[in-house]
Amino acid sequence: MKKLINKPGDEVKEMIEGMALAFPQIVRKDPKWNNLYRRESPIPGKVSLVSGGGSGHEPAHGGYVGKGMLDAACAGETFTSPTVPQIFDAIKAVASDAGVLVIIKNFAGDVMNFQTAAKMARAQGIKTDWVIVNDDVAIPEPAKRRGIAGTVFVHKCAGAAAEELLPLEEVKRVAQKVIDNVRSMSVALTPCVVPKAGKPTFELGPDEMEVGIGIHGEKGVERRKLMTANEIAELLCSRIIEDLKLDKGEEVAVIVQGNGGTPYMEKFIVYRRVHQFLTEKGIKIAVAWVGEFMTSLEMAGTSVTLLRVDEELKRYLNAPAETIAIHTPGPVTS
Amino acid sequence: MKKLINKPGDEVKEMIEGMALAFPQIVRKDPKWNNLYRRESPIPGKVSLVSGGGSGHEPAHGGYVGKGMLDAACAGETFTSPTVPQIFDAIKAVASDAGVLVIIKNFAGDVMNFQTAAKMARAQGIKTDWVIVNDDVAIPEPAKRRGIAGTVFVHKCAGAAAEELLPLEEVKRVAQKVIDNVRSMSVALTPCVVPKAGKPTFELGPDEMEVGIGIHGEKGVERRKLMTANEIAELLCSRIIEDLKLDKGEEVAVIVQGNGGTPYMEKFIVYRRVHQFLTEKGIKIAVAWVGEFMTSLEMAGTSVTLLRVDEELKRYLNAPAETIAIHTPGPVTS
Repeated sequence: MKKLINKPGDEVKEMIEGMALAFPQIVRKDPKWNNLYRRESPIPGKVSLVSGGGSGHEPAHGGYVGKGMLDAACAGETFTSPTVPQIFDAIKAVASDAGVLVIIKNFAGDVMNFQTAAKMARAQGIKTDWVIVNDDVAIPEPAKRRGIAGTVFVHKCAGAAAEELLPLEEVKRVAQKVIDNVRSMSVALTPCVVPKAGKPTFELGPDEMEVGIGIHGEKGVERRKLMTANEIAELLCSRIIEDLKLDKGEEVAVIVQGNGGTPYMEKFIVYRRVHQFLTEKGIKIAVAWVGEFMTSLEMAGTSVTLLRVDEELKRYLNAPAETIAIHTPGPVTS
Repeated sequence: MKKLINKPGDEVKEMIEGMALAFPQIVRKDPKWNNLYRRESPIPGKVSLVSGGGSGHEPAHGGYVGKGMLDAACAGETFTSPTVPQIFDAIKAVASDAGVLVIIKNFAGDVMNFQTAAKMARAQGIKTDWVIVNDDVAIPEPAKRRGIAGTVFVHKCAGAAAEELLPLEEVKRVAQKVIDNVRSMSVALTPCVVPKAGKPTFELGPDEMEVGIGIHGEKGVERRKLMTANEIAELLCSRIIEDLKLDKGEEVAVIVQGNGGTPYMEKFIVYRRVHQFLTEKGIKIAVAWVGEFMTSLEMAGTSVTLLRVDEELKRYLNAPAETIAIHTPGPVTS
């Protein structure tokens, strides 16, 4: 295992400290937990957004704390959900009079812990609701679909709605609208190494790839011979277009990311074919994000996310955001 | 070789096409060359900045084209200087009445080709000057030092000065002031693979690292046993502080990057110790950039850059920029 760390098991604490040291104008760290809070939260009248999950998905989720996106991000140990008391404390730390929306990725541990914490907050009189993101079309049954890179579009749009001081019900409606219209799919060219485990999450031959992976270094739903960038772009787009029933004339926002270990050169080569392929199908690209958004440690690979957008979602995607990883308006290469 | 490409040799053309497709609001592609130009350049009265170099350093250099930074970036083939006619055409494409400043990294091929093109532009009556960046302290003799990640601070500050419509002499003065006060040093945990070569640029044992590498996948000046993130941060900072003769009470801007293949978790762990170490020495951090800025394909590793800043340079670092990879004001995690 070759990693720029100190001691396996210390990586999350030290990373969160590093983020807080680098960007004190944006975030503050909870004195007890690996939680990052927007410096000025809670903001009276503004719904507070809370998200998080296991670490290893950076810049998710701490990178999205700030104006126009999240008020709190809870970082669990690598690929492990944050605990109920940790999430509960995050909700209490940022809860405003307008209430709290919790954005949960559809993984068993996250759903259990975030929902439990949200219910505890409700029991304490904090107006709290939640949404569950399940954008991964690699899994056939929607209820079992994992929450992956599309989650960042939920943070962005719900965050922009909250910034406009919409009530909790409306912020939740916007979040759910994104969830209903966003799909992602991912491939891996390499596994990754969880620091405490010290060995790769799976073995893969030099000419093989995993198709339909999650974000925890797990194998995909299918192993294939390595394909070209163009073939991979077409495969991922085709599956998403079919699932979303995207039609000619519709508009989308796109995320192309590298899963943590793939450099910008390759991400832009993938984006090129995604753009061409959508254009050939008569689908218009309203917003393009190319970078790292919801990763799996140092895994090489790529994921494509498409969000069907209308004027409302386009406005929220382009609304101002000032976080560690995303600044809009302007292009986004987190 | 596991890469998201199509055919080795096509990677640069396709990447540049991808960048232009993703961010048409920022850049336009030269119809003939792998050059990206700021969409609205040339801008009357504004000095135009031209830079570039071999590809494989993304987001450099195309990612820095846009408001507040470059007017043109020339992309050579992977790790190969762009050609003289290509650079000459870029200068002509963006030259304004205020003139052109060419920002060259100190590599033999780049210096020869960019200087030759600049002299050809002068011969055609275009007011043209240049600076050469040599921030790599791994090399003892300053004249032989390579231009690495510190180059991006030159783009940022000179770009901000040009945006204020300062004359060419002043923009050059700002660029040279950054060069005189910026130093970088880098380590590699893995080699990288140039697509056309198809094999790693060097071999490295599972517990070894290269110290003092350039940005072309070359070996470092020294091979060492793998060190912890903290030890690496201290080693790199110490060498730079000594070379820059940084004193207690001075202020710096910092870049911590991952060299292309190192994920955000590790970059923030390195940043944490850089921040602590500088603070222990009484050096204040005015600006922190954490991300990918001047990389070596998929190489894992990290580089640290320190720039001694005063009020003028801080103002230029924080001035507005709207490029593919850098948006300020705000934090920067390209």
